[in-house]
Amino acid sequence: MAGVDSGAVQVNVPLSVGLIGPGLIGKALLNQFIDQVATLKKEFQIDLRVMGIMDSKKMYRDHLGLDLSKWKELLDTHGVSADISKFTAHFEGQDFPNAVIIDCTANAEVSQMYYEWISKGIHIVTPNKKTNSGPFDQYKRVRELQRKSHIHYFYEATVGAGLPIISTLRSLVETGDKIVKVEGVFSGTLSYIFNSFNGEKPFSQIVTEAKAAGYTEPDPRDDLSGMDVARKVVILARECGLQLELDDIKIQSLVPKPLQGLNSAEDFLKELPNFDEEMESQRKDAEASGEVLRYVGVVDVKANEGRVELQRFPKSNAFAQLSGSDNLIAFTTSRYLRQPLIVRGPGAGAEVTAAGVFSDLLRVASYLGAPS
Amino acid sequence: MAGVDSGAVQVNVPLSVGLIGPGLIGKALLNQFIDQVATLKKEFQIDLRVMGIMDSKKMYRDHLGLDLSKWKELLDTHGVSADISKFTAHFEGQDFPNAVIIDCTANAEVSQMYYEWISKGIHIVTPNKKTNSGPFDQYKRVRELQRKSHIHYFYEATVGAGLPIISTLRSLVETGDKIVKVEGVFSGTLSYIFNSFNGEKPFSQIVTEAKAAGYTEPDPRDDLSGMDVARKVVILARECGLQLELDDIKIQSLVPKPLQGLNSAEDFLKELPNFDEEMESQRKDAEASGEVLRYVGVVDVKANEGRVELQRFPKSNAFAQLSGSDNLIAFTTSRYLRQPLIVRGPGAGAEVTAAGVFSDLLRVASYLGAPS
Ligand SMILES: NC(=O)c1ccc[n+]([C@@H]2O[C@H](COP(=O)([O-])OP(=O)(O)OC[C@H]3O[C@@H](n4cnc5c(N)ncnc54)[C@H](OP(=O)(O)O)[C@@H]3O)[C@@H](O)[C@H]2O)c1
Ligand SMILES: NC(=O)c1ccc[n+]([C@@H]2O[C@H](COP(=O)([O-])OP(=O)(O)OC[C@H]3O[C@@H](n4cnc5c(N)ncnc54)[C@H](OP(=O)(O)O)[C@@H]3O)[C@@H](O)[C@H]2O)c1
Repeated sequence: MAGVDSGAVQVNVPLSVGLIGPGLIGKALLNQFIDQVATLKKEFQIDLRVMGIMDSKKMYRDHLGLDLSKWKELLDTHGVSADISKFTAHFEGQDFPNAVIIDCTANAEVSQMYYEWISKGIHIVTPNKKTNSGPFDQYKRVRELQRKSHIHYFYEATVGAGLPIISTLRSLVETGDKIVKVEGVFSGTLSYIFNSFNGEKPFSQIVTEAKAAGYTEPDPRDDLSGMDVARKVVILARECGLQLELDDIKIQSLVPKPLQGLNSAEDFLKELPNFDEEMESQRKDAEASGEVLRYVGVVDVKANEGRVELQRFPKSNAFAQLSGSDNLIAFTTSRYLRQPLIVRGPGAGAEVTAAGVFSDLLRVASYLGAPS
Repeated sequence: MAGVDSGAVQVNVPLSVGLIGPGLIGKALLNQFIDQVATLKKEFQIDLRVMGIMDSKKMYRDHLGLDLSKWKELLDTHGVSADISKFTAHFEGQDFPNAVIIDCTANAEVSQMYYEWISKGIHIVTPNKKTNSGPFDQYKRVRELQRKSHIHYFYEATVGAGLPIISTLRSLVETGDKIVKVEGVFSGTLSYIFNSFNGEKPFSQIVTEAKAAGYTEPDPRDDLSGMDVARKVVILARECGLQLELDDIKIQSLVPKPLQGLNSAEDFLKELPNFDEEMESQRKDAEASGEVLRYVGVVDVKANEGRVELQRFPKSNAFAQLSGSDNLIAFTTSRYLRQPLIVRGPGAGAEVTAAGVFSDLLRVASYLGAPS
């Protein structure tokens, strides 16, 4: 048993980090590292070093930890052609132990490396939804190997960005709570759209303005299709023990059928007003009963199913009270039955998403012995 | 570096648990253990054994792990006189390692043992607020020893019961977020009272009915004094890095000065209606501006202070939308500046509080090597 003496020697926990995808999130994460690296060493005994960075074209590797303030210059001027096998090899059997690869891409090929990384003893942290919402057998294979080999694989930021969603769900499940339902507004864009849809403006105008303000994907149909929400539903369903595939999710797309095949976002936005009446009548129906419309993802554990749908909520419900582009996730369980456990806040954006990834990385460090 | 081979052998992480205080929370926790012990072993490779139980009179110890289904009988009929030194000694140098003492009392003498336990390599999990809201120098001494000796000390359930409050705050701080303000309705009782105070009934009647329904402490002044909220404010303030004492908290007590000295709860409730007018005028003032009253605890990091006060919130604010006896905690930080990160839900009760304690215990197991 560790007594007080064992603590007399301050031993740092090394973290040998590889970052794939220095895009919006990856860049924010590197900046957070720059701000926090000294504090982590001094106060948390974590010696965090970035040993390699790779984007879709180039990679830069270092055996001692690269100068973070110069990462961009190093990658641009000293980087070599990106090669994921060589990048992986760089993290095998290093003198500086505890390799963690952070996958900040949305790429399925990168996420297909997880099995190999784990088998090589490399921990993984990621906001990339591809593995956890991809084919169940592949996901299961990764998770089983990971648990068996005591390698860590964390992905808090795949749902709700920096909000504590997956960790909360896990605590409930591990302590024996029975999950009844997980329900959420998982898309900041769709939160904003329906929070603004109060009768003042037609639906299509709200969508058009949201796109103009940069709140939507370049093609708003990518938000309105519900596919991204469905991926999050799959991820959460699997945390609840359901063996669902993305194809199993019942998705009520907000893109009218006739507009799904249009070639451009512009064409889509030009046609969308033709469907305003339909949307407005749903809104009015709801309003007549004192309710509002919200676009939610649902994991219904009893029914063993996942859904993405437009639901009506009474105005006194927390979902009805949403504002801005907040996410809101409600956990209904045997212990939180009459009043759910609710987490709410911004669920997208560079800073908060990177913070969710960073927090997972520090969890790896804690699990590897950093003091709590 | 751990490769896949190291995982081939399934090694359980032992947890040698001592429970002090099998009261409301402690009992619920033991029942949750009974339900979950087999699953923990099978799925999480955690071998949880309760090696001892102690209340204020008796204690029962066992070297192999007691039969949980019979704990009450064992304590009642085979228990010996409670002796905290002997109880402690039972957890030193056991063959079955990773001793964790769970303090489910509200007792300051028990919490004064923490330093000794940590120095003996015993981890601690507790919902008891006494150490973390007690004298700062003692708290600091415990925390410093704990970090230095790599012993774990978790107390999630001291604030918001099973809600993820302290863990969320810690993630924010560790990843370099700057906390601006933590604000919360931390008392289920006071949440209920102000959520019900809508002009239909006088304040004193709501308090009297809440007492009759068993929602308040036996003497409602223990809720209305704000002392329990102040303790939570101190705990959170210290997590934010402030060195505050309980005495530093500016508390707006809801017990009118002239009623503070009354001898009985009955006398208090008899006199309280004399102060209804004052309360009602505050409520009406707020209402005239479209606002409601909420009794909140605030950690104001910039001002380096903690407060407990009656605040007014516009009806669109999440605090105004509270219902039932929910807690609601809002974190405003540099990353969550315009829209705070909010956690809401039941923040008291046997099941959810025990679950908060249980979840901390499993965190100890993870930090000691259980698979994630
Ligand atoms: N944005 C958010 O608010 C948010 C919230 C939650 C989760 N996420 C998730 O976070 C991840 C990153 O999002 P983002 O907004 O940062 O995306 P992004 O700005 O498009 O960045 C993607 C990065 O991945 C790199 N990349 C793409 N394919 C690659 C490959 N095959 N090999 C190596 N690098 C590759 C890109 O490099 P090039 O520049 O060379 O193409 C770029 O650096 C995504 O999975 C996203 O779903 C984002
Ligand atoms: N109830 C909630 O919803 C809630 C929520 C959050 C946190 N908490 C905290 O959880 C803790 C437990 O609350 P509770 O409601 O379970 O209290 P409780 O029902 O009064 O139980 C207290 C237990 O502590 C034991 N105890 C008291 N002094 C002791 C001593 N000196 N040595 C050994 N055992 C002693 C009592 O034993 P005897 O029976 O022999 O007196 C009893 O078993 C408190 O710190 C409370 O603030 C409670």
